[in-house]
Amino acid sequence: ESLSSQIKASETILKYGIPDRGPDIRVYDNHILSYDQAKKTPVWVAEYITKGNIDGPADRRKIKFKSDPNVQSQFSAENSDYLGSGWSRGHMAPAGDNKHSQEAMKQSFYLSNILPQNLENNGGFWNRLEMYCRDLTKKYKGVRIFSGPLVLPTTDENGLHYVKYPVIGKNEVSVPTHLYKVIIIENDKSEPLGLGAFIVPNQPIGYEHHLKDFQVDLKQLERSSGIIFTPKLDTVKIPDLCQIDSCDLMKRDKFELYMIGRKLQGARTLKYLEKVWSEIETKNLTPDNYLINLYNSRKLELTYEEKVKRKCSVKI
Amino acid sequence: ESLSSQIKASETILKYGIPDRGPDIRVYDNHILSYDQAKKTPVWVAEYITKGNIDGPADRRKIKFKSDPNVQSQFSAENSDYLGSGWSRGHMAPAGDNKHSQEAMKQSFYLSNILPQNLENNGGFWNRLEMYCRDLTKKYKGVRIFSGPLVLPTTDENGLHYVKYPVIGKNEVSVPTHLYKVIIIENDKSEPLGLGAFIVPNQPIGYEHHLKDFQVDLKQLERSSGIIFTPKLDTVKIPDLCQIDSCDLMKRDKFELYMIGRKLQGARTLKYLEKVWSEIETKNLTPDNYLINLYNSRKLELTYEEKVKRKCSVKI
Ligand SMILES: [Mg+2]
Ligand SMILES: [Mg+2]
Repeated sequence: ESLSSQIKASETILKYGIPDRGPDIRVYDNHILSYDQAKKTPVWVAEYITKGNIDGPADRRKIKFKSDPNVQSQFSAENSDYLGSGWSRGHMAPAGDNKHSQEAMKQSFYLSNILPQNLENNGGFWNRLEMYCRDLTKKYKGVRIFSGPLVLPTTDENGLHYVKYPVIGKNEVSVPTHLYKVIIIENDKSEPLGLGAFIVPNQPIGYEHHLKDFQVDLKQLERSSGIIFTPKLDTVKIPDLCQIDSCDLMKRDKFELYMIGRKLQGARTLKYLEKVWSEIETKNLTPDNYLINLYNSRKLELTYEEKVKRKCSVKI
Repeated sequence: ESLSSQIKASETILKYGIPDRGPDIRVYDNHILSYDQAKKTPVWVAEYITKGNIDGPADRRKIKFKSDPNVQSQFSAENSDYLGSGWSRGHMAPAGDNKHSQEAMKQSFYLSNILPQNLENNGGFWNRLEMYCRDLTKKYKGVRIFSGPLVLPTTDENGLHYVKYPVIGKNEVSVPTHLYKVIIIENDKSEPLGLGAFIVPNQPIGYEHHLKDFQVDLKQLERSSGIIFTPKLDTVKIPDLCQIDSCDLMKRDKFELYMIGRKLQGARTLKYLEKVWSEIETKNLTPDNYLINLYNSRKLELTYEEKVKRKCSVKI
């Protein structure tokens, strides 16, 4: 009786349908997300990565950020919201988790998977956290990841608790105060082996912090975000990820050499190549043979390309 | 093929279920709402009111605010969050829309239907807006209402757009910057006759403003809230409520006399009764016969009650 009267109430009160905040989930080739039509950012983005999907030929240089064609335009972020805002476009499902498929990587550049992220954080600490997740696939069969934004309160000089965050562009995209990640590693039987929850301020983090500095109890993240991430899994019994594995992110020198390597690969002019290479000296780094060889071969390639170009432009 | 690969992706990526932000809708006897587990307030509250459900014997004095027993305690607001916070407990589905049923009224006092509202706004402008909605049922067969909170950006002295709002209590209940209402009136065939959307700052409003000062285009409210309120209704063709009806709220004098009447009815001591009655003079109001009779009869009742009480307390 109570149920049928509730159904009757629904039919009367919601005669014109359930107020719609968009689909609960949006499914892509290699990630699934829930999108916040008010904030114009994801709520959560889920991934399952293995050795298999983080390696492959997909090339991010062929891809541009774009509004998600699946999101209604009135609720969509646009590139113009981000450009000149002072905030970078931060992936939640990282491009680098989609190396196996150009299409999957393309989908990771939809703005439904993006939020306004501090540039140094995006390229630095958060990047190293993403690399740590990918490294876990070398040791564990699968890695389950949930990423997303938070707006957390602070306390002002009068002891008042309040939430404050910028919005950018004409679509008023919300800039989160923090980003979260839940990481679950799985054993060969695909059983959960370790779980860690992390809340990282959307600010420059630098190299002084260990990942554990940002570890929180999953319950705390659930309360702040309003989300139970794995409703069908009793997470209480799962050991702490940072006890099972190290939670050590890549060290500064190694990371900076890695980033220089990526920039050398991406260099399109000799001038830029030399500028990148000079970072080795200014940052007081010691390149390994791989990097020296990479520099030399890119130098040869670009020298040849620029010679050809000069000749052609003279001829034309 | 694309669909089946998406289903496969869902099964793998969301092996432990869809991240859960609570049920999409929560159905009560006379209202339906969606609850924000992160903000600990409703997202939207829907009602359909008629002459039939705004009249009756239900008595709000027998009811106390309480946490919604249907909301998981980790996501629930509590009375202690509100008490001493400086913010009142503001109904979205008003208690006064549930006079036909004590049970429905009781449900309207669940904190899932409540948000932190400026006290003057709650008892004043917003109250008058709710009374206006009830008055509409005298002229129109049905009135459809959606109410809820918004956090809207402001611009600081440097031209920066940001959102700022307090959170209260240990559960960090979000205090909205604004409240919204969508009102649809229906004709005798239950067809939509007029629609108005309003965004009211969560501040004292006073009597200087007309309701139209807060009217917005429904599209604007949809974009800010991320909600399409009536997905099965083409709202574009529906005339403006304030053109069809007046959107005139009750005038100051009439409203203050009405509020005094309610306080007289609720008075439990002679002292309080006299204090309320003295407002007539200090506010320079002219009571009508109904109010004068109400005052006199309450005075007789309370005089008698207090006499009895004195006698009894002497005896015991
Ligand atoms: Mg990134
Ligand atoms: Mg109220």
